[in-house]
Amino acid sequence: MSFGSFGIDDLPLRDELRGKSPYGAPQLDVPVRLNTNENPYPLPEPLVERIAERVREAARTLNRYPDRDAVELRTRLAEYLTRTSGHPVGAGNVWAANGSNEVIQQLLQTFGGPGRSAIGFEPSYSMHALIARGTGTEWITGPRDEDFTIDLAAAEKAIAEHRPDVVFVTTPNNPTGGAVPSETVLALYEAAQAAKPSMVIVDEAYIEFSHKGSLLPLLDGRPNLVISRTMSKAFGAAGLRLGYFAAHPAVVDAVQLVRLPYHLSSITQATALAALEHTDTLLGYVEQLKSERDRLVAELRAAGYEVTESDANFVQFGRFADSHAAWRKILDRGVLVRDNGVPGWLRVTAGTPAENDAFLDAIRELKKEQEQST
Amino acid sequence: MSFGSFGIDDLPLRDELRGKSPYGAPQLDVPVRLNTNENPYPLPEPLVERIAERVREAARTLNRYPDRDAVELRTRLAEYLTRTSGHPVGAGNVWAANGSNEVIQQLLQTFGGPGRSAIGFEPSYSMHALIARGTGTEWITGPRDEDFTIDLAAAEKAIAEHRPDVVFVTTPNNPTGGAVPSETVLALYEAAQAAKPSMVIVDEAYIEFSHKGSLLPLLDGRPNLVISRTMSKAFGAAGLRLGYFAAHPAVVDAVQLVRLPYHLSSITQATALAALEHTDTLLGYVEQLKSERDRLVAELRAAGYEVTESDANFVQFGRFADSHAAWRKILDRGVLVRDNGVPGWLRVTAGTPAENDAFLDAIRELKKEQEQST
Repeated sequence: MSFGSFGIDDLPLRDELRGKSPYGAPQLDVPVRLNTNENPYPLPEPLVERIAERVREAARTLNRYPDRDAVELRTRLAEYLTRTSGHPVGAGNVWAANGSNEVIQQLLQTFGGPGRSAIGFEPSYSMHALIARGTGTEWITGPRDEDFTIDLAAAEKAIAEHRPDVVFVTTPNNPTGGAVPSETVLALYEAAQAAKPSMVIVDEAYIEFSHKGSLLPLLDGRPNLVISRTMSKAFGAAGLRLGYFAAHPAVVDAVQLVRLPYHLSSITQATALAALEHTDTLLGYVEQLKSERDRLVAELRAAGYEVTESDANFVQFGRFADSHAAWRKILDRGVLVRDNGVPGWLRVTAGTPAENDAFLDAIRELKKEQEQST
Repeated sequence: MSFGSFGIDDLPLRDELRGKSPYGAPQLDVPVRLNTNENPYPLPEPLVERIAERVREAARTLNRYPDRDAVELRTRLAEYLTRTSGHPVGAGNVWAANGSNEVIQQLLQTFGGPGRSAIGFEPSYSMHALIARGTGTEWITGPRDEDFTIDLAAAEKAIAEHRPDVVFVTTPNNPTGGAVPSETVLALYEAAQAAKPSMVIVDEAYIEFSHKGSLLPLLDGRPNLVISRTMSKAFGAAGLRLGYFAAHPAVVDAVQLVRLPYHLSSITQATALAALEHTDTLLGYVEQLKSERDRLVAELRAAGYEVTESDANFVQFGRFADSHAAWRKILDRGVLVRDNGVPGWLRVTAGTPAENDAFLDAIRELKKEQEQST
């Protein structure tokens, strides 16, 4: 179709979208990709077969709409949470959607939106702010300490001052890596209730990699608390797009007022159910990745880099006078890491031992080069 | 988890959500379900096998994020549109998401939203208004004629008066069934451009069942026009949740500013690609359904019912003094049809010949009962 030189700015799009670029890490074809916190281990072949089997079964009734409430999936997710946290969670506490991004979008449509605001302590997962923008929720950038931990007094002050409707706490935090102590989350919850009351969304996307346990037990008696999770990382299923949350059943009821009906396909539900049958194997990979993560931290420090504490499957390292130039030099050595826009720092995902070796070789060379040029 | 009697209204949810119920047809377990415009034909077994095969392949790299831009899928969808409409469409003209609901949500986030408005001519697909609400877009109910066609003069007047940012035209219209003539859509597009300019979204979810052709050729030279489609109906894949649209490439660029990154899973992309390999078989089922739809129209009329013209895989029939009571009586006979809230009318989906026979038996009995009671 030919339209002449008509472009995006000629469309009647919303003013705040003008001049913006789509979110997303560069998808470059390089030998070692350690930039998007993917799990480097492909699913084991028996699980691949089980997925094919369950999907074949689901495909036989694909002419019908999926289970709108995804009851079986939510039941199995609840069992997984109960088993791994020791805290009893039922299907009525759990909601699932296409990636934790959609989970967060639904929560902001329900509890944020026009005339309301959300706060996050940055740097943190940048999609929180972007989804806030997409849902018309005012975004407030909360403070973080020099060492990237949350300064509780400063955070409480920001909550008291701005009275946000939604408070985001990411633990372990992305891209910096550290987990937030449960006392801090408790105090933030209390501050948020005193100010408004507000919903507190704890994003535990990387919790399976943490030295600390999940904050699921905090749900007891705190109906304005939501713990969001994903199958992208620990389950090695970034391609599946399955996010979920645990909360009071009233929160599950509430998001159903805004969720698109039949949002979660039969195929997605079948695939996620297959993966949940293989939890033990997948959590075995998590243990390997934790060791590799710890090795990355140790080796980076040994090579003379600064590293922030990591409870995730990635490590933030620095410091660089020009982190984007450093990113480029590592890429020139065939290793793609992530420049999250935190001045002086880069982020590397824990890959397979061989991938991590390639990264460590590159980064040691970089250090030598820097030392020679100074 | 125990929380006492805390309920949804105790949460700090948005005021406009209070007292609302989730959207969705009742999912009742009855022998004959003709209520959600599903395709009654399961996918053919070779296609089921092909889905399992492509999903198995996709599952082997499920640890990686999906192709964020779904390029292969958009290429195949463009080929399908080109082949069936005769109008050349390229991958750059096509965008896909989790069901046409998500397509429409992305379009409203881009072109509607707070401080903006959208109009639809009702009764029509009720999700347009609900997604408008969910995205903070003001909803304007446009007029429709007594016979459920669009009264062009009245529609143009409404557009000139309200100057909406988005205009919805559903053709064939749901739940009433009729297709909108292309001259009407052209005139509405002109009216919308004169008033604002606005985006015009033509929802062609049921177009494959229509006596009239697709409006895709209208895209030429009309960059503010969008044609939305779905694989739920003609492709017999309601469980897949795959919606898409064709438009000027600038519109495809624009929705990428609001789409959640990696919104479309690898598994969904693989399944849709498999289904697109079997287009000819699936379009064969569409021909059968068109015959059955025409039979329903004829038999309903022969039984003494009024029927609105149908270009879809469903038929609106009436009239009933109390349509909900009639819905219940048909349900009592084991057949679930849909009460869309159009006073005096109900909607039945064209099912298999046997399902349609069951429906026709029920509806003839109902007519007899009504005649005896008067």
